[in-house]
Amino acid sequence: MQHTIARLKDAKMTHILRIQSAALKAVHDYMYDSGVVQGMPVILSPETDPLNHPHFDASVDYYGQRLHLTKSMILHKQLSLLNGGFDKIYVMSPNVRLEQGELGQTGRHLFEFTQVDIELKEKTKTEFIGLVDGMIKNVFEFVMRECAADLDALGRKLTVPSLPLKVYESEELRSEYGDDFETIASAREADPFWVLNFPREFYDREDKQTRGYYHNYDIFWPEGYGEALSGGEREWEHDEIVRKMRERGTRMDAFETYLDVAKQGLIPRTVGGGLGIERMVRYLTGQKHVRDVTLFPRVPGERIDF
Amino acid sequence: MQHTIARLKDAKMTHILRIQSAALKAVHDYMYDSGVVQGMPVILSPETDPLNHPHFDASVDYYGQRLHLTKSMILHKQLSLLNGGFDKIYVMSPNVRLEQGELGQTGRHLFEFTQVDIELKEKTKTEFIGLVDGMIKNVFEFVMRECAADLDALGRKLTVPSLPLKVYESEELRSEYGDDFETIASAREADPFWVLNFPREFYDREDKQTRGYYHNYDIFWPEGYGEALSGGEREWEHDEIVRKMRERGTRMDAFETYLDVAKQGLIPRTVGGGLGIERMVRYLTGQKHVRDVTLFPRVPGERIDF
Repeated sequence: MQHTIARLKDAKMTHILRIQSAALKAVHDYMYDSGVVQGMPVILSPETDPLNHPHFDASVDYYGQRLHLTKSMILHKQLSLLNGGFDKIYVMSPNVRLEQGELGQTGRHLFEFTQVDIELKEKTKTEFIGLVDGMIKNVFEFVMRECAADLDALGRKLTVPSLPLKVYESEELRSEYGDDFETIASAREADPFWVLNFPREFYDREDKQTRGYYHNYDIFWPEGYGEALSGGEREWEHDEIVRKMRERGTRMDAFETYLDVAKQGLIPRTVGGGLGIERMVRYLTGQKHVRDVTLFPRVPGERIDF
Repeated sequence: MQHTIARLKDAKMTHILRIQSAALKAVHDYMYDSGVVQGMPVILSPETDPLNHPHFDASVDYYGQRLHLTKSMILHKQLSLLNGGFDKIYVMSPNVRLEQGELGQTGRHLFEFTQVDIELKEKTKTEFIGLVDGMIKNVFEFVMRECAADLDALGRKLTVPSLPLKVYESEELRSEYGDDFETIASAREADPFWVLNFPREFYDREDKQTRGYYHNYDIFWPEGYGEALSGGEREWEHDEIVRKMRERGTRMDAFETYLDVAKQGLIPRTVGGGLGIERMVRYLTGQKHVRDVTLFPRVPGERIDF
């Protein structure tokens, strides 16, 4: 407990919260000005992102129904875009992922965190990349203007990245740096950068001609700060979704409604992604661990006292 | 499922989401301009608001610890203000309250919803009322300016409330209208209004001279839309907190850390409150039920299909 009190009282936390507040303001301003409507988060649902890595179950029972804590709002974002009156939506979406304890060491994992989670309809990855490039630049400019004294107090120097951010193919980086290309490229780059094509969950679109090529991407923060955003163009065809669920061993009975909508041919053609707020604030403030930018950190495997 | 698809596709939902987006923008702008720092939500914690009405447990186990879904961030907001560098904080805080099914009929209950949850340090209820009055006015002005066509399409006429909003004592309204004064006053008033003094959870400050008088409040929406915000000045003294927990039968072992901080005399003297976003959007858009303003409604007692 004394540890929690010390963290809450830490003068460093004042600067971090001010920078966080400015960064969030810049995100909301940019989204509003870009005509992206804001939806509300979903916390409990019978269907949620399956994730493609091992983790523990987080669910509750309510009136005989098992409801899962949201691991990401991907499926809900997609279906939101069934509405014909808007083609862009974002949500400040808290996600709970009860990760295995070893992820506590990466410096960038919390078992509870918030994404700014964006989805666009009838758009391509190029258009998504353009929108997010603008958001990142806007965050840097606003934070540097509003929080110059806070950045100074933290000893943090930032430069506004030049747009467009660089875009790499993952295979290109892998052949240059080997399997650990994410870490190495993140350490070598000076600006945030995109990397295309990662094998992932069923919902990221796989090329029909070139199987094994995925129309998806990550953003990485530079200076070794690692992954910032994940997203992609999405599958919309029922048969593709089912094929990919089978390949991945995804439990199809956990996606009854989603598959029903897919069977009716109603999944909108979308592209999107989610950018982690705590990771962004960690980068902007130059802190070692996401724990250091969080008032009440939820680090995988660590006991919480409040 | 067809019901969910129809709701998502409903043209009315376009207008509602645009109005919601403008209302949220106005809240964030106002908070930022008022120097209120923004914290991140807490979803899981060993300690959370006990609430003073019957509801079901919502918790998960993680590495041998039982973590509760946040019913409100009151305790975390208070301790956030241990930091000496800011005296105002807000959080867009999703709350999960597994309510009993009969609350599905009130038109204003969801078992999952979001509050703009605000707490101020070393301030009085008068200062809190002034801050929130300004926020509400800002929301009305911004929504009416930005979303005139959407309000028209919904057949909704709004007028910017005059400040200061009226403030009533609950006993005054009770003697005029009887025990159902909340409903009757909400139906009769034309503008949102404050009501002071409600018996509530242990953390709302009870007057030391006049026991049974609470330095807390609600805001009500007019036109019968009912409760909008709850809050109050808070208890900070360990002995008062313990006395009130005992009176209410609150399980003290569920507040080990909080009571430990209180025992050290460290609970900041704060005042605050939380305003429900879905209820605000329901009022602004003139809808019957909070269900009608939510893409994925979680209505007490109702089965969720997505």
